[in-house]
Amino acid sequence: MNLTDHKKKFYDQLSEIHVLHGVDALLGWDQQVYMPPKASDGRAAQIEYISLLAHRRFTEPEFMQCVDALAESLDQPSDDDRVNVREVKRALDRQRKLPDEFVAEKARASAVGYDTWVKARPSSDFEAVKPILTQIVDLARREADLIGYVEHPYDALLDAYEPYSKLSVVKPLLTGLAEKLRTMIPGIAGKYEHIDDPKGVYEESKQYAMGREIAADLGYDFQGGRLDKTAHPFMTTIGKNDVRITTRYYEDNFLPALYGVIHETGHALYELGLPADHLGTPCGEAVSMGVHESQSRLWENLIGRRRSFMVYLHRVFSKHFPDAAATMDEDRLWMHANKVKPDLIRVEADEVTYTQHIVVRMLLEEALVAGSLQVDELPGAWDDLYQKYLGLRSPTLKNGVMQDVHWFSGAIGYFPSYALGNLYNSMMMETAQNTIPDLDAQIAAGDFSQILGWLRTNVHEHGMRFTGPELIKRISGRDLESETFAQYVAEKFR
Amino acid sequence: MNLTDHKKKFYDQLSEIHVLHGVDALLGWDQQVYMPPKASDGRAAQIEYISLLAHRRFTEPEFMQCVDALAESLDQPSDDDRVNVREVKRALDRQRKLPDEFVAEKARASAVGYDTWVKARPSSDFEAVKPILTQIVDLARREADLIGYVEHPYDALLDAYEPYSKLSVVKPLLTGLAEKLRTMIPGIAGKYEHIDDPKGVYEESKQYAMGREIAADLGYDFQGGRLDKTAHPFMTTIGKNDVRITTRYYEDNFLPALYGVIHETGHALYELGLPADHLGTPCGEAVSMGVHESQSRLWENLIGRRRSFMVYLHRVFSKHFPDAAATMDEDRLWMHANKVKPDLIRVEADEVTYTQHIVVRMLLEEALVAGSLQVDELPGAWDDLYQKYLGLRSPTLKNGVMQDVHWFSGAIGYFPSYALGNLYNSMMMETAQNTIPDLDAQIAAGDFSQILGWLRTNVHEHGMRFTGPELIKRISGRDLESETFAQYVAEKFR
Repeated sequence: MNLTDHKKKFYDQLSEIHVLHGVDALLGWDQQVYMPPKASDGRAAQIEYISLLAHRRFTEPEFMQCVDALAESLDQPSDDDRVNVREVKRALDRQRKLPDEFVAEKARASAVGYDTWVKARPSSDFEAVKPILTQIVDLARREADLIGYVEHPYDALLDAYEPYSKLSVVKPLLTGLAEKLRTMIPGIAGKYEHIDDPKGVYEESKQYAMGREIAADLGYDFQGGRLDKTAHPFMTTIGKNDVRITTRYYEDNFLPALYGVIHETGHALYELGLPADHLGTPCGEAVSMGVHESQSRLWENLIGRRRSFMVYLHRVFSKHFPDAAATMDEDRLWMHANKVKPDLIRVEADEVTYTQHIVVRMLLEEALVAGSLQVDELPGAWDDLYQKYLGLRSPTLKNGVMQDVHWFSGAIGYFPSYALGNLYNSMMMETAQNTIPDLDAQIAAGDFSQILGWLRTNVHEHGMRFTGPELIKRISGRDLESETFAQYVAEKFR
Repeated sequence: MNLTDHKKKFYDQLSEIHVLHGVDALLGWDQQVYMPPKASDGRAAQIEYISLLAHRRFTEPEFMQCVDALAESLDQPSDDDRVNVREVKRALDRQRKLPDEFVAEKARASAVGYDTWVKARPSSDFEAVKPILTQIVDLARREADLIGYVEHPYDALLDAYEPYSKLSVVKPLLTGLAEKLRTMIPGIAGKYEHIDDPKGVYEESKQYAMGREIAADLGYDFQGGRLDKTAHPFMTTIGKNDVRITTRYYEDNFLPALYGVIHETGHALYELGLPADHLGTPCGEAVSMGVHESQSRLWENLIGRRRSFMVYLHRVFSKHFPDAAATMDEDRLWMHANKVKPDLIRVEADEVTYTQHIVVRMLLEEALVAGSLQVDELPGAWDDLYQKYLGLRSPTLKNGVMQDVHWFSGAIGYFPSYALGNLYNSMMMETAQNTIPDLDAQIAAGDFSQILGWLRTNVHEHGMRFTGPELIKRISGRDLESETFAQYVAEKFR
């Protein structure tokens, strides 16, 4: 094949894999949103078949040869071709280092781990998950060895979620920030001790209507999306102009569903803002999990929990819940939305304490992967780190070391991305605010078009053309750092 | 390969194709139920990809060889193997007679035909659809020639929906019945002239709740199914224990949604009653479109419009619409549900006049395929046949020859199945009633378990082990005939 043939095959096959990923996403979405309960076995078989098909198309020898040939010969390629070949080769290089038996063993262990965790968690039965977690950690170490690394085995795992990142960069950023936050948290949390949750009865259908209105105002196009209800909120991309979000509702408190919607809307706006002409190729894909999380958290926290947002929010809230709004002014709403309190559960943590939860997990993952910590020492090490970073010890393992699904389902190395999102978005927002001087007036008026436009131009439209570190340098002129986020917290909660 | 290998490949490949069909069904279901409007292009690509994949797997040379080898060597096979090989070979024989270019041309023409029809129908613009319909009819004739036939080219088309059936059998059955009905309809319809539709305001959410309750009472397991809202009601099978139905709502009349639900529940009960161990093979598939329609219409009409059903229905209706129920007793409910009136629209026709709509279409299809009728003569021929069988002429083409999507989307030969359903189910019901003497008491009490059990044992559980004609002979001891249905109508509306 000549270069033109290779290029054609490259893009044809990527577009086929893109179709399969969309189908897979629909199978997964339906499974969590509308699938009848008894259908789960059949659905698992459908998902397995389609995922395997996508995997096989991606790792087909002819396709790999074609990617390798393009990587070698693309000396004077278009920028987009260069990016696409670079990123596909990067993903492929990871995959081809893992033998089929290893992939199968990991898939099995992850499935068993998940099932075991679901059953063992309610009774905090760590003994029950210990054997499978030991196997999963062992698999993670073997995966790191198979993939290879220069500095630390953890880098090989981290790279799956944060391309071009390393523990030696991420760890000082996050632990440094956590140290600063440790000293700040008691002072901030103290101010909120007298604030209760917003009591009331908030009908689900009204919460849905409010969430939908706010998502639309933020710029989420419901002609290319949906908002549904699930046990765990998520965003998923099913195809071009088909990016869906979900949330969950508590009828005694409207905040979790609302901020769930805003968070997932942030993810969806990123996906819908990726260049449509490049869908299915890296130029039309998100940079990393950390940059994705920067978008969800930017909308959720930096915009959605801003004082000026409360002017807008109070107006919308009054429309859907006039009685409750009459008892809650903008300041009160701000306090409810910005309550800072060290607590045990990561997914419920506020934006200030959130980093601490991540640092605990990252340090434990590092030690597990390095082999300096054994699985049976994990609960104790967990408690010690929670004591250190949040001043708390969990009375139960289910709300301690067993609270998150990640490790038990085979995902080790994912957690740092969540916290990196805060670093990225605080630096983005600093630049954006300088570009849009009257941003707060716009937000108060419910006009989010300029900030969304800024994100589209500076983040979304690039797809993977820049790596995360390159992107933030382009935006801010600086390397990724945690000082901006620390400053933001200090100023916001002064 | 030896016989064991062939058998293994045969069943493995069928199960793969079954997975793909389920995925395809989910893509189609979502498209009609929840997909965001702007996603339609991407969805079309996903559906095309998955359908093509299923088609390729089915018509793969190795698979065809394997089916042929099994067909020749299965002299002493198990009954199930024999049925599965026979039916797969039958479907395959149809497909391999059609060259790829023909299949592609037909797919294109069907897509263009559908789009053209959607645009042209509102303004009754028959000129706009004439060229594409002419092409579709020409394709149908070519398809008949390619597939081959002994008696009439129409047989080759009919066979796709009614295996083992022929025009020389179906036509006298249906036209004979239509002649009888022609003489009966004026007398029956006359009795209903003073009956209006049930006026009122019937909230959609309450109609949904009532429909769901009734479907569940009939035996539809919502742990393996769902009821959603669409523009056109349908039933679809997505996988094992995943058979979904939809309906549409009119807030001024509860009957269309209700009988839509009961009709689709009938289809769903058949699918859920097919032997689960044989899913994906003919032994786990429905016999024909006609037998499928026999099930939907049995529940909709022979049970759902029965006098004893009104006892049950009035009770459920009173629960969901107490005010309306207070003004409508069981007899009144029966009259509303059993209004007979010659009208122009097939999908809104009552059980008595329905056959007439089908006969008109069947006769026109026969003449088009035989070449004795040209497309530009179609509107006139349509009107003449409506005049003959229903005493009506449509003032507009959109409610005349352009009312149904079938022809314009390439489906010629499908219509007879709808009416055959009535013939099958009246004969089934006659036998079932003899087996369950207190059926009406059970129905009045809302207990449908015995009639469902009878259908499971006598129809559902056989899959395709018997052909339609064999099945009805096994049940009734007689060949398929229309006298039983005519008798049923005569007695019911005496």
